[in-house]
Formats: sequence, C-alpha cells, structure tokens
Amino acid sequence: MKAFVMREIGSVGFMEKPIPRPGPGDAIVRTTKALICTSDSHTVAGGIGPRENLTLGHEAVGVVHEVGSDVKVFQPGDRVLVGAITPDWGDPAAQNGFPSQSGMALGGFKFANSKDGVFAEYFHVNEADANMAKIPDDISDDLAVYCADMLSTGFMGAEKGNIPIGGTVAVLALGPVGMMAAAGARLRGAGLVIGVESVPQRQDLARTYGVDEIVDFSREDVVERIMELTHGEGVDTAIEALGMDATFQTAIKITKPGGTVSNIGYFGEGEFVRIPRVAWGVGMADQTIATGLCPGGRVRMERLLRVLQAKRLDPTGMTTHEFEFDDMEQAFEVLDKKLDDVIKPLISF
Amino acid sequence: MKAFVMREIGSVGFMEKPIPRPGPGDAIVRTTKALICTSDSHTVAGGIGPRENLTLGHEAVGVVHEVGSDVKVFQPGDRVLVGAITPDWGDPAAQNGFPSQSGMALGGFKFANSKDGVFAEYFHVNEADANMAKIPDDISDDLAVYCADMLSTGFMGAEKGNIPIGGTVAVLALGPVGMMAAAGARLRGAGLVIGVESVPQRQDLARTYGVDEIVDFSREDVVERIMELTHGEGVDTAIEALGMDATFQTAIKITKPGGTVSNIGYFGEGEFVRIPRVAWGVGMADQTIATGLCPGGRVRMERLLRVLQAKRLDPTGMTTHEFEFDDMEQAFEVLDKKLDDVIKPLISF
Amino acid sequence: MKAFVMREIGSVGFMEKPIPRPGPGDAIVRTTKALICTSDSHTVAGGIGPRENLTLGHEAVGVVHEVGSDVKVFQPGDRVLVGAITPDWGDPAAQNGFPSQSGMALGGFKFANSKDGVFAEYFHVNEADANMAKIPDDISDDLAVYCADMLSTGFMGAEKGNIPIGGTVAVLALGPVGMMAAAGARLRGAGLVIGVESVPQRQDLARTYGVDEIVDFSREDVVERIMELTHGEGVDTAIEALGMDATFQTAIKITKPGGTVSNIGYFGEGEFVRIPRVAWGVGMADQTIATGLCPGGRVRMERLLRVLQAKRLDPTGMTTHEFEFDDMEQAFEVLDKKLDDVIKPLISF
Amino acid sequence: MKAFVMREIGSVGFMEKPIPRPGPGDAIVRTTKALICTSDSHTVAGGIGPRENLTLGHEAVGVVHEVGSDVKVFQPGDRVLVGAITPDWGDPAAQNGFPSQSGMALGGFKFANSKDGVFAEYFHVNEADANMAKIPDDISDDLAVYCADMLSTGFMGAEKGNIPIGGTVAVLALGPVGMMAAAGARLRGAGLVIGVESVPQRQDLARTYGVDEIVDFSREDVVERIMELTHGEGVDTAIEALGMDATFQTAIKITKPGGTVSNIGYFGEGEFVRIPRVAWGVGMADQTIATGLCPGGRVRMERLLRVLQAKRLDPTGMTTHEFEFDDMEQAFEVLDKKLDDVIKPLISF
Repeated sequence: MKAFVMREIGSVGFMEKPIPRPGPGDAIVRTTKALICTSDSHTVAGGIGPRENLTLGHEAVGVVHEVGSDVKVFQPGDRVLVGAITPDWGDPAAQNGFPSQSGMALGGFKFANSKDGVFAEYFHVNEADANMAKIPDDISDDLAVYCADMLSTGFMGAEKGNIPIGGTVAVLALGPVGMMAAAGARLRGAGLVIGVESVPQRQDLARTYGVDEIVDFSREDVVERIMELTHGEGVDTAIEALGMDATFQTAIKITKPGGTVSNIGYFGEGEFVRIPRVAWGVGMADQTIATGLCPGGRVRMERLLRVLQAKRLDPTGMTTHEFEFDDMEQAFEVLDKKLDDVIKPLISF
Repeated sequence: MKAFVMREIGSVGFMEKPIPRPGPGDAIVRTTKALICTSDSHTVAGGIGPRENLTLGHEAVGVVHEVGSDVKVFQPGDRVLVGAITPDWGDPAAQNGFPSQSGMALGGFKFANSKDGVFAEYFHVNEADANMAKIPDDISDDLAVYCADMLSTGFMGAEKGNIPIGGTVAVLALGPVGMMAAAGARLRGAGLVIGVESVPQRQDLARTYGVDEIVDFSREDVVERIMELTHGEGVDTAIEALGMDATFQTAIKITKPGGTVSNIGYFGEGEFVRIPRVAWGVGMADQTIATGLCPGGRVRMERLLRVLQAKRLDPTGMTTHEFEFDDMEQAFEVLDKKLDDVIKPLISF
Repeated sequence: MKAFVMREIGSVGFMEKPIPRPGPGDAIVRTTKALICTSDSHTVAGGIGPRENLTLGHEAVGVVHEVGSDVKVFQPGDRVLVGAITPDWGDPAAQNGFPSQSGMALGGFKFANSKDGVFAEYFHVNEADANMAKIPDDISDDLAVYCADMLSTGFMGAEKGNIPIGGTVAVLALGPVGMMAAAGARLRGAGLVIGVESVPQRQDLARTYGVDEIVDFSREDVVERIMELTHGEGVDTAIEALGMDATFQTAIKITKPGGTVSNIGYFGEGEFVRIPRVAWGVGMADQTIATGLCPGGRVRMERLLRVLQAKRLDPTGMTTHEFEFDDMEQAFEVLDKKLDDVIKPLISF
Repeated sequence: MKAFVMREIGSVGFMEKPIPRPGPGDAIVRTTKALICTSDSHTVAGGIGPRENLTLGHEAVGVVHEVGSDVKVFQPGDRVLVGAITPDWGDPAAQNGFPSQSGMALGGFKFANSKDGVFAEYFHVNEADANMAKIPDDISDDLAVYCADMLSTGFMGAEKGNIPIGGTVAVLALGPVGMMAAAGARLRGAGLVIGVESVPQRQDLARTYGVDEIVDFSREDVVERIMELTHGEGVDTAIEALGMDATFQTAIKITKPGGTVSNIGYFGEGEFVRIPRVAWGVGMADQTIATGLCPGGRVRMERLLRVLQAKRLDPTGMTTHEFEFDDMEQAFEVLDKKLDDVIKPLISF
C-alpha cells in the first residue's frame, strides 16, 4: 500500500509498505479521510526526535478492513472514527485516570510517533474495541474526522479550565485547536469568550465558533485589553492554545485569583516555560495551571460525534483546502508553509 | 406601602406595611418587576408551616431606594437584581461551600419564609453588597428577573449533574425550572437533552430551550423510551425537576451506572422518597444523587446576567401572562390554579 | 483440582474441576490464602440468583502458575494480590471512570458471579497485567489478602464521602468493611470518627482501627446521640456499611446540609430503599448520596499494599479464625451462622 | 498598649499604641500566645513593600476582650483562635470559593499587611463570628496557636495535592510549614511521604510528623533518589514548601504524568519561576500546578482544633524556643538569623 512518510528529519515522501495485520484485539482501517495537523510539521522538523520512514498523520476516519479475533464491537465494513490518541486502557496511568499518559508521559500518542500513522491507504488500531467509534449514518467522514484531535483537544482545554456557567474565558491563539477551545468554552456555558488573534480570516471564523470579543495582539496590549473587558478582574479561565513562553506568561497575567490557566499548546522550544512571579500571586493566588493531551477512546469519540449529530457545531468551516492523497506532498507543503491562509487541509483517499 | 401577603394558610391579599429600613449592611429596593413561582402557592397552602401576614414572593428586580452605612458597592438609583436566596456569607455552612444552607438547612431562603418577600412596593435585602448585582443597561428588568430563581435553580440542576460534553441528559418535567435545567444542560454541552412532559405548549417551548427529544409520559413508557433513545445505556444525568416520588424513581431507573441523578424538585409530600433498590444497583452502581437549593449571591447573579447579555438564552418566552401589581390577586390565582396554560406571570410595579 | 462450590441455592461443597487455562492476556494463580466474605453467604442464599457448581470466593492471594502470551508484567512464581473486582479496562464504563461497572452494572464483579471464584487450588485472572499486583517481600499473604476487598471497599466509603481534614464521620455498622471504612476515614484525616455498633468485640476492635466514639444502637437513640456528639450539626459524612433501609434512613438524618452519605452496603432486600423526606431537606439541602463498588486494578492494589507496607494499619486483627482449605465447609458455616464472634475466617491452601 | 512593630524596612521595635476598638461585627482579642513566622522576617526585609510602624505577627490566640454590637457567637472572656487569614466572606472571591483572595489577590492576608498584626497586647479581628473559633478546654493555647497558619497552610498543601490513599508524596523543604504539609499528607492517607531536607534536626523532627524517607539534597541528587524511591514513576504529589525557583523545578521533575505539584511556598525573588519544559511533558502530561494561600475562617479553625483534640498530631514539637513578649526583639532576632536551630519561637503575653 501507499504511505506518506517522514523519511528522516526534514524530508517527506511516498513509499510502498505492506498492509498491516491486526493482533487479536486490533483492527486495520482503510483510510477514507484525513486531516493534516501542524504537529505533523513539528514531527518532520525533528520535534520528537529522529524517525526513519515513519508514516505520518494521526487524524483520520475510514472503514474497517480487518479485525483481530478478540474484537467484539466492530466488524469489517463499519465506518469508524479513530482517536488521535489510542491509549492502553489497562495501563497504570489509565487506571489512574490519565489514559493519554499510558505507558509513559504522552504514551497514548502512538500514531506517527511510536508506530506508523494514518497517512496511508490502511492503518493499524490497537485495542480497537476501546479506541474506535462507529460513525452514525448522518455524519459524513469530512465532519467526523474533526473529532479525532481538533474537537477532543480543544474541548479538553475548556473542560480542564473549570469554566462556570456565565464565566469569562480567554483563548490565546485561534488556530484550529484554539477555535475548538473557544467552541468548547461555549459548550461549557461561558458568558464571555475572548479570542486573541491577529489574522483577520481566523478572527472571522472564530466568531462563528463562539468567540464574543477579539483582541488583536498586533494592535493592542493584550493584558490591558482583557483587563478592560473583564472590568479589571481578569478571566476565570485562560486557555493557552499556542505553546509559546510569551503567550503562557500572558495567560497567567490575565487570569484572576482562583482562576485556571488551561494549557493545550505544545511547547516545542526552550529549556523553560516561565511563570511571571508577581502576576502569579507569588505562588499563593489560588491559581491553577492545568495541562493535558488530547483524550482518546470510544466513549470520548462517541460523545464528540453526538455533539456533531446534534448540530451544536460545524467544524468543517475550518476545511480551507481539499486534496487527493496522491497530492499529499503539495498538501503538506501548504500547511507546513502556512500558504493561502490555510487552516486545515482535508485529504481524500 | 402596599404588600401582597399570605394572611394565614390558604388566604392571600393586600395589606399596608411600613417601608422597611436597612441595617448597616443592608439595602431597601423599590420593586419594578417580579415573577410568581409555584412555590409561592406551596407556601400559601401551608407547605412551610403557618405564617401570618407574611409578604410573598422571592423573584424580583428593582431600583435601590436606600442603603445602610456599610454598603459600598451600591447606591440609591442603581438598577439591581436580587437572588431569591440571600445567604449569610460568613456562616459556617457558607464557609463550607454551601451558602444556601447558611444558618440552617435551606436557611438562605429568607424571602417569604423567614422574612417578608418581594411582592411589595419595597423590600429589604440582607448583606446587600454580597446579595445583589447591578443590571447592565442592555438588559431589561423583564429579562433580568428570570435570574433570581429560574436560571439559578435550573442551571444548578445541570451543574450538579456532572454533565460531560456530548453527554446524555433527561429532564423530568418541563415546568419553568425544568426548562431552565434543559437550557443549563445545553450550556454545559450536553449532546442529547431529553425532556419528559405531556403538555403540548410546554413541549414546544422547551424545544426552543434546547430539548432535543420529548418523551410524553401520558403516551409512552418513560423508562423504556429513554433506554431506547440511549441505545440501552441510560443517561449520564437525570434532572428531577418536579419533586415527586414516582418521578424520582424514574430518574434512578434511567440513569446509567456511574451517572448522576440531580434533584431540583421540592418534595412536598409523603414521609419518604423511595429509591428503587435493584435499579439503583443495590447501592453499588457508582450512581450519585445530588441535591441543592437555588444558588444566590452577587457573583452568581453577575454570571447569569452575563449569559443573558451574551444572548445565549431568552427566558422571556416563559412569560405567558403580565399583570400590574394592583391585579396581584388575579395573577396569583392564574398560577395557583394553572389557568390559561400559564408558565410564568410577570408583575409590574 | 479441588474447588469449593455453590452447587445450587442453599448448598455448598467440594468438587473436582480442571485447572483453568489462560487466554492471551490472562493468568492462572495458585491460591495460597483466601478470606470468606458475608457476600459469599448472600450468594449461596440466592442473592444474585441461581448458580450451578460455581466456585465461590473473591478475596485471595497466591503465586502465579501460568500466564498468557500477552502478559508482560508477571511471570510464574510471582506472589500476587488480585482485586476482588477485575474490570475490563477498555470497556466504556471504565473509560468513563467507573471500571467496577464495566460490561454492565456491577460488571467488574466476576469472581463467584459471572465466572468461577477463588476458593480453589487455582483460579483464573482476566487482564492479568491490569488486575494483579506483586506482593512486596515484607508483606505476608495473611496481610495482603485484606486488600482484595476489605480495604478497597472500606476505604472507598471514606474516599467517596468527601471527608475534609478534621471533619466528622459516622460509620453505620462495624463489620469488617465498616471497620475498614473507619480506618479509611482516619486515613483521610477525619477529626472525629463515630462508629455505630452493638457487639462489644466489634466495638473494641473498631477502636483500634480509629473509631473515636461508639454509639450502641441497642442502648441509645442513634440520631440523638450523634447530634449530641456533633453539637447539633450532624456529621460531614455518614458511611452506610450495612445495606439496610433503616440504617440508610439514619445516615440521611445524621448528615449535615452539604454533607455526604456514602454507601458501601449491599442492599439485599425490599423493593425500595427509603429516603426520609424532611430530614433530606425536601431534596434541597445540598446533601449528596454517593455509591460504589469495590475498586479493583493494579494501581489500586499497589496503593493499598503501600498502606500496609508503611504500617499505617494492620487489618489482621480481624482474622478471628483460621482454617485449612480442607476444612472449608466448617469455615463457611462459621461465617454463615456468625458463630464464635467471627469477623473474618482466613483460609490456607 | 505595647506593640511590636516594623518601624520601616529593616527596623523593628516596641511602641505604644491605643487598644483598638471593634466595629459592629468585629472583636478585640487580648493576646495570650503567638508564634513568629519567617514571613514576618520577609515583611521586615521589605518583601511586601514599605510599611511604617506596622504591628507585626499573624499567628496568635487569646481571650476576647470586647465585641461589636453584631457579634453573636463570641463574648468577652472566650478563649479564641484566630486564623492568620481573615477573609471578607461576602466578597466576590469568597463567593467564588477562594476567600483568601477576598478583596484582591492575597487580600485575606490582613494582619501585619493591610492592618496591624497580632504582636501586641490586643489585636482587632474583622468579621469575628466568621474568623475566630473557640478553643476547647482540653487544648492549651501553646497548642492551638499552631492552627492559625502552620497547620492550615501545611495541610492545604496536602489537600490541594489531590493525594490518593496510598499515594506517594514528596515535600520539598522541611521547615515548619513543610513539616505540617508532611503531616497533612499522612492525614490524607499517603502511603509514602518523602521529605527533602539537609538539616539533621529538621530531618529527625519531620520523621515524627510522618516523613517516611528523607532525601538530603546536600548529599544526593534529589530527582534521581526520588525516582529510585518511586521505582521510576515519580510521585503522585510534590509539595513545594520553600518558594525557590530551583525547588519548584525539582517538584515538576519528580511528579508523574497526571500528578500534582502543590505549592505552599512564598516566591519572594526573581521575575520568573521557571517550569522545565521537557520534564513538564511539553505542557501535555496531565500534570497540574496548584497554588493557594492559608485558609482561614471559623470552620477551618474548628476542624484543625478537632485534629489536635483527637490527638492526631502534636505540633508543639516545633516549639524550639519560648520568650516573654518583653523579649520580643531577641525572639525576632533568633528566627530572623536562624540561630540555635530554631524552628518556631513561641511568645507569651
């Protein structure tokens, strides 16, 4: 089968690989749709270290091709959504309530990391009964594929942010995950969702996902403006959706005593992420910093699909580009170089 | 001043009372709008015991008339919303996280219970800085008055129900508080909100507040139908919004293992409320039964006002009737006897 | 091998069975020590319905005899503790945070319920890597075996009871699980642990596990006495450790507004368990009723073993009787008929 | 009356001040015992900015001298404990669940900060009914005074650390607050409490408060040793009880994915507190950083007194020195300069 791989750091391309075979609890899925993620770019740039001929991609849906002998819930032909994170559910970290950390820190992140990813004609799913969900007939593949990572990660930012109904929330950076964090804040009942972003197209799209107020960091002082919007109080919850030291510092500064900074950004650079000491209340302001990795699992995926089915949200507005799998190199370049105001490129197989 | 009182059990009417005077931390509010609540009827029927010439009513907004010497946040002329529940914030129960229970069980419920209520030209507010909120200019009195009890109680049902994003929720009985519980479930991100109700007008209105599916108990078996709608799983959260033994039993039966029954109904009759033993998993199904009393306080009211200001919800669709304060007897009768498909009667002062 | 079985309702005895074989993820354990539980008696009496030649018992430790091909953590010869509850960790209920409910309500309870139990020379463990724990060298089998159910269930009662440091707790009935609930309350920092019990030997032993005050229901009014001990406030947490309607009602009555009734009793009789309406604050006193089933799993077992290893507690004081496996019939009768002030009979294999 | 004050930054001494008078809800307490805190030294050194003739001290007990007209719970002659933090309970932050932040970040910290402290013959208590607790007859002043700050802050570190029964905890720095954090970890049921400390006397005393293992940072690598003690997993909870950038970094490094870093240290220096990026799981390891300020209030103080009354703990082992109030300058110097292996100096009035 055809697979789109990271040959080595800095180099991508197609190669031929054998169709994978399932272990007793596993499934093989024939890919139908996939999304490219900025973290695919990070991986190729060396963000998780060297890899050789590793199939890229972690956001995909497809049709079950083959199942192992112990798989009970799924059978060949089922349309399925697979979480970007596929935990080992019996692992101690999962028993402790943190399945995304199963095996090791971030250990649930297997696709395009510890095993081949989903940018191939077929891909392998561990613990299939626990890590896949059937896609309802009224949900298209183009829609469902957003659950794998975008909704799951974005919503997690809101969930871990401990937002009260009517609470105030700021989302720092309105990339696709930030937009879904804003949508998640709305889903949790936030009364004011502030988005920090300078790109006009992203500002506009984010408004459709529930951002009430935009703060453009290229034109105004973010801390000052957010304090003004919250009558000097600061927000209940700041969601860091970029993964930059400066943004993280802003998140601390705009969060009220007793509030939560919820991080969904991947911090890719530097030895340290810095907490501004005084704004942090010298470590005594009852502020909480929460972090996490995209939740996976059948239950999570079913709940996200239910959100789509109930039409609470339409993430396909983020699909700015569509490509055939054969044009994957071009698709990858578009996202990698942020061409044409790209948000998410959708790949058809 | 004119006050609408419960003369004794079973008897209501107007009487003249002196305008109340504030203690150092208190305020006197000139009433502008109020809502009648079915619990006013319960009170008159003797639900909380005998009372003599007690002013009725606990849902009101108005204009500050006078403040005590220690009041810092408000001044005469401010348009204010006052929570139906006005806790003593320094009380042990409040320190313990349960202000509505300050002083004694349900002790935060003072209006028309332990002191005169709001159906008068003026009413008294204890700990004014903590128990009132300024109404923003863009929120009308007719709208704001719904925060005092309806939104606060209904939303609490959702909040205590521990609803996950995309979760399944059933609301049992779609009176005004049940409708707001459904709205609250939507605000928390529920993926499926099922309402149980037989009155067509209420069914229709509830759909506008976020009920996805209606189960009509007069036409179908509620447990069977909800199990069908949830593919045999039961709901994550059942909100009991009626306060009846039979409804409570249904709530237990339709809630999945690990789920929550969240009660916002006032149970007014019988020695016991009964848990069906086997459906309850013989006491071992990780099911939780949560209860509570309408949260009050400035912070709560400000958050609810923010929900209205952000146009997440318009509760005025529940205003089926409007009366002048002079016609209070007629208004009271309409709600007491459930005439003309009444939901909430709004009173203008 | 020799197995001690329930032949049918009301009848027990030995029979010969083949040594079980493991599936890929399973293990076979050679039993060394086991405890008999009152729920074994309930099962024989028909509490979970008819069974035929079902091996009894769910509390055991032993030595790994054989492992399946996918087992990574354990190997033959390892001394192991096995939780009484052995969940399917990938199941939706487990993903939702309630592994004991995997498969169905109470579905993690497999031993002597949906498969053969541990009163045999060998027994089978599903998902062995997730459901067993190695016993440290300095912990004897006689000690470790108490973790399987007694510590796990009793401590859960305290954990779900939401006990604050210095809080007040009442444990209703001081059988072995109640004693461990009291010990759990102490482990969570309770400032006052009240035990309700009439049997002198149990009263005495319970004091060694952390009960500060005994209330003897045969001599005094429990509600009155507990109100006196708590200066009229009621307790923060009442742990129901018996599973009787009357005891449950007492639990509601002695719990303060905002407090928690935490149930660990198995309710075996009656159509209903009854909540006293007025004492329950008519459903509005912010009281919570929590329930659960003994947590299982490697992480849980390792933590319980650590409690023993650190000598925080010595549950072997509950071992009132010791028997060889050959004398199992006699042992079973002693517990079944509550002879000789029995608390827990320990069986050696 | 005589008061021990900070004249200006760097200078302390006695001065005469009038006995304070209570407002309607306040009380005046005649001081009997007080403890000096290292934060008194920080204040004198300029840690919270310049102050002029500010009475120092925030840990004290005494006898009620006078109460305001609205005080209901206390009367002159009552022996009372006063929390170091005396919140405004009606304030928005308190309503939001964070009374220590009432008024502003850290706003509940009034003594020797925004008003005169307790190192005087008499001191003033705001909202007396809410901020004081009666001392039971069987608790001496010498004992009770430890609740005001030491127990409340230390235990908070454990409470916010989300410690499971049998969990693993490391406390970084075993000063008096760190020792009480260790004691708090034991009270929450920790199965392994590791203390990091180099001073032999503190190591020894900490063992009596529940530290199971000592790691001496002057002799061994802390991260390496704690990883060894936790079999490579890291701890469930790290409590930072020093307030230093390097210690905070260690806390992040030794905490497992899904674990909690709970801060009770006052960070007095530097623009930033630094999170080591990779050890923090690049912001995605489900690790939480919790912070807080000593909880105050009557309910808190009553619970802490109950812990002492039940003899769960005896903090007087930390009283290394005793002085009369007349010798306050000498006492202050002993703590300020850390003479004679001082831990806590107790002052008698």
